[in-house]
Amino acid sequence: MILEVAMLTVHAGQERAFETAMQQAAPVIASSPGYLGHELRRCMETPGHYLLLVQWETLEAHTVGFRQSPAFAKWREIIGGFFAAPPVVEHYEGVLRWPKPA
Amino acid sequence: MILEVAMLTVHAGQERAFETAMQQAAPVIASSPGYLGHELRRCMETPGHYLLLVQWETLEAHTVGFRQSPAFAKWREIIGGFFAAPPVVEHYEGVLRWPKPA
Repeated sequence: MILEVAMLTVHAGQERAFETAMQQAAPVIASSPGYLGHELRRCMETPGHYLLLVQWETLEAHTVGFRQSPAFAKWREIIGGFFAAPPVVEHYEGVLRWPKPA
Repeated sequence: MILEVAMLTVHAGQERAFETAMQQAAPVIASSPGYLGHELRRCMETPGHYLLLVQWETLEAHTVGFRQSPAFAKWREIIGGFFAAPPVVEHYEGVLRWPKPA
């Protein structure tokens, strides 16, 4: 499983609307082949900062499959207007997990 | 559940030793009250970059309970020497999770 980590900065005052839009956008990304699950998290230290964590079967499921699909255009249409800065996106592979999976 | 997100930069050439040290350090953080689980992930785009994700029951379980404990000194003793830059640590609370938990 590959973890996509996107650091998002949202326009001040638009945090609640952004969170609602992300609920609306969830089924769009969830329909993409190789998608496993995602969560949105709000930074407790910095208002307007969010972390989007998306689990993909492979790197390409995100970078090729999703990003080059019509679903990605729809996704950006719903949430793209909220960003005060371009999202910073990286991918991470697992090294260790604790407690160890049974 | 609060997610601690620590961005770690490790000295070049010490990645494998760091990963081994993190295995050794895992029981140290895992014994802290309010600890729920953690994972270490390796950045696929930038060598030497890692993400440490720790689940805590509360913010204070990390910032007070763990950081002010003897276990934290032990933790830093095992892994502190690998960092090429100070870890960047933030905390995130949940906004949405998909698929929705049953």
